Amino acid sequence: MSERRETPVRVALLGCGTVGSEVVRRLLDDSDELAARIGAPVELAGIAVRRPDKHPELPQHLVTSDAGKLVESDVDVVIELIGGIEPVRGWLLTALRKGKSVVTGNKALLAEHGAELAAAASETGVDLYYEAAVAGAIPLLRPLRESLAGDRITRVMGIVNGTTNFILSAMDSTGAGYAETLDEATRLGYAEADPSADVDGYDAASKAAILASLAFHTRVTASDVYREGITNISASDIGAAKRLNRTVKLLAICERVTAEDGTESVSARVHPVMIPRSHQLAGVSGAFNAVYVEAEAAGELMFYGQGAGGAPTASAVLGDFVAAARNRVAGGRGPRESAHAVLPVRPMGQTPTRYHISLDVADKPGVLAQIAQVFAVHGVSIAAVRQRDKHSTASLVVVTHLAPDAALEATVSEISKLDVVRNVVSVMRVEGEDS
Amino acid sequence: MSERRETPVRVALLGCGTVGSEVVRRLLDDSDELAARIGAPVELAGIAVRRPDKHPELPQHLVTSDAGKLVESDVDVVIELIGGIEPVRGWLLTALRKGKSVVTGNKALLAEHGAELAAAASETGVDLYYEAAVAGAIPLLRPLRESLAGDRITRVMGIVNGTTNFILSAMDSTGAGYAETLDEATRLGYAEADPSADVDGYDAASKAAILASLAFHTRVTASDVYREGITNISASDIGAAKRLNRTVKLLAICERVTAEDGTESVSARVHPVMIPRSHQLAGVSGAFNAVYVEAEAAGELMFYGQGAGGAPTASAVLGDFVAAARNRVAGGRGPRESAHAVLPVRPMGQTPTRYHISLDVADKPGVLAQIAQVFAVHGVSIAAVRQRDKHSTASLVVVTHLAPDAALEATVSEISKLDVVRNVVSVMRVEGEDS
Repeated sequence: MSERRETPVRVALLGCGTVGSEVVRRLLDDSDELAARIGAPVELAGIAVRRPDKHPELPQHLVTSDAGKLVESDVDVVIELIGGIEPVRGWLLTALRKGKSVVTGNKALLAEHGAELAAAASETGVDLYYEAAVAGAIPLLRPLRESLAGDRITRVMGIVNGTTNFILSAMDSTGAGYAETLDEATRLGYAEADPSADVDGYDAASKAAILASLAFHTRVTASDVYREGITNISASDIGAAKRLNRTVKLLAICERVTAEDGTESVSARVHPVMIPRSHQLAGVSGAFNAVYVEAEAAGELMFYGQGAGGAPTASAVLGDFVAAARNRVAGGRGPRESAHAVLPVRPMGQTPTRYHISLDVADKPGVLAQIAQVFAVHGVSIAAVRQRDKHSTASLVVVTHLAPDAALEATVSEISKLDVVRNVVSVMRVEGEDS
Repeated sequence: MSERRETPVRVALLGCGTVGSEVVRRLLDDSDELAARIGAPVELAGIAVRRPDKHPELPQHLVTSDAGKLVESDVDVVIELIGGIEPVRGWLLTALRKGKSVVTGNKALLAEHGAELAAAASETGVDLYYEAAVAGAIPLLRPLRESLAGDRITRVMGIVNGTTNFILSAMDSTGAGYAETLDEATRLGYAEADPSADVDGYDAASKAAILASLAFHTRVTASDVYREGITNISASDIGAAKRLNRTVKLLAICERVTAEDGTESVSARVHPVMIPRSHQLAGVSGAFNAVYVEAEAAGELMFYGQGAGGAPTASAVLGDFVAAARNRVAGGRGPRESAHAVLPVRPMGQTPTRYHISLDVADKPGVLAQIAQVFAVHGVSIAAVRQRDKHSTASLVVVTHLAPDAALEATVSEISKLDVVRNVVSVMRVEGEDS
């Protein structure tokens, strides 16, 4: 880059926790390198934190508790790493409306108010980047928004929450139950004291909303995303999966669904899924994230890397910052997302899924016929059945073909009430294999 | 995207083979969708092919044999899919100097004349995009250039040539020799009639040059890349790897090497490598590509997908086209690559590598001591030794620690001349494991 200007790009940082302090460190330590890449020097204009006295490690003349004032000051780019909806939403809208570019990792805010923020950025022609909001360090949003802009994405499916992946990986390898494994994860720092955002799937649902919006050029919010967490996954679910050479993962799944009449809709959902151990996502363990993308022309793609942590997330934040800063220097702005497609969101009940059902049934003739009849009544086609005797009961495993989720749910509900069914061992959705 | 202009973005296509015809199909069939994403209609202004009479399937009023004239006509973006250095270089320089953005998949041209093309693009402030040049459909160059722009990449390593990967995968699963497997690959259409560009590593070396340039902000050309192909890989090499639960891949490796005095240099090389079967790249088989990236903050990342083929490559080309066209409409330009770091390229002899050496040696006392002495003389530290009797000879396997490649080569050369060494079964570099 030959051009180089003297006027610095001024940046304000809101929030200085694990990721923020890593961002500060790199902004200060790598300032020459960043300046070379941007084409102008970088000046850290201020750091807003709630309790300035708690941050003796920061350059004190930069620290302020007044985020609102910092946002309105003479800065070019605002990096927001506080999280949560209010008061952050107001600050970022102010920044955008005053012509400052915004870099944020705030998935909850984007999943809820992404449209409003994008509109504000559009009005003043500035950048709104948020690579850090999904899958940490993995470059995923920019590829979806830009690299695949000439293709038609049909599916985005992935592991986007490290806490639940850590817990499920541990349950799989130790055979322990959910509660016990959660305790261990909390002790090791993989789960927060209040783990609900992770284990109930809220975090993954926000990310699914962001991914679906970008992939399908349609505004999808967190409330559009069907959500089931991992709190009901039992050791027997994991055991049932293991016996079939499968494993259980919490997946965010965003699909373009085409109805028989050709109309399209979007399905966005987060729930536990049984996948074959040979599946690429099965090998992703611990705190790693991986996202699988299918597009009409590109075919199958996979992106893999660290989904959280100070340094990895800071990498995504700084990548966005350099892009936004370069655009300030060059006088342009990056390609924005588009929501021109406006596809309807398909309710979960109408979304085609496949179930794996594991039952203990009475060991006598006619049981399978009786159960198969329930599937038939609900229009659910059976892909495979496996029966095994154990004392006076038999174990029965059924895997279905694709059917509307509501039909599958109704089938399971009716089957569980049959006299011949002693126990419903495990019911789980299946992805990633034929039949 | 709310803005929408009426004036179309005019695009010229140079070359219409497998990828080009897929690009034409999508430009024409998906014109509404592309217009929505770009914010302006797209007009295909002309298609230059060598023999227009060979393309009855194309809209005839668009076809021309005069690429030079088409490039100088009133178009906004030139997509080049002809390949080769001349006369393409001249056409693209003309296009860039006349203020037209260029999208190309021409790795040979970029690896040789990338600096000249980038300078021309910089002069007129237009875009030069080439995502399709490396790893086909996989979004890789944009993440390297943009997403990781705030990080420090230390290593890029991957499978970037589908033909050699197909051959090595097949040799691994069948146990057949190289010549036989190449014949099969040619018959199946995975190798060209003249396979040299692939099997001698030229194609991968061009890609390594492009990757190293982007990753290390330094201009690296194809001639800077150390290159060894797969033509000398024997069934016994593959067998030696198998016995150690490893497999052989042709890898492009780009590393930032820091010397003891802190000076940095870049190593870019293409050669066969033995990797553990548990390594992420080991599972990449057939015509797929995968690239592994390490950065200081982001940690380990992996990108996986189809590395070649008409539709996948067209996806990358169209992604670049949409980005370039959006920039035309918005009046800006995308972030360009930067070569500000100007790191020296480290010669292969001085590059730290590790060797795996498999020998048949005389089965008598003192042999290991004699061989170990040769390693010691060359300053090469041994990581592991395994010896096994077989009749009157013993099989000896040595894995080294990191040492300058020249020292390793000299060690092997001297060892092979020892009386006690009956046969050098296999010598190969190793990556991806400790010790």
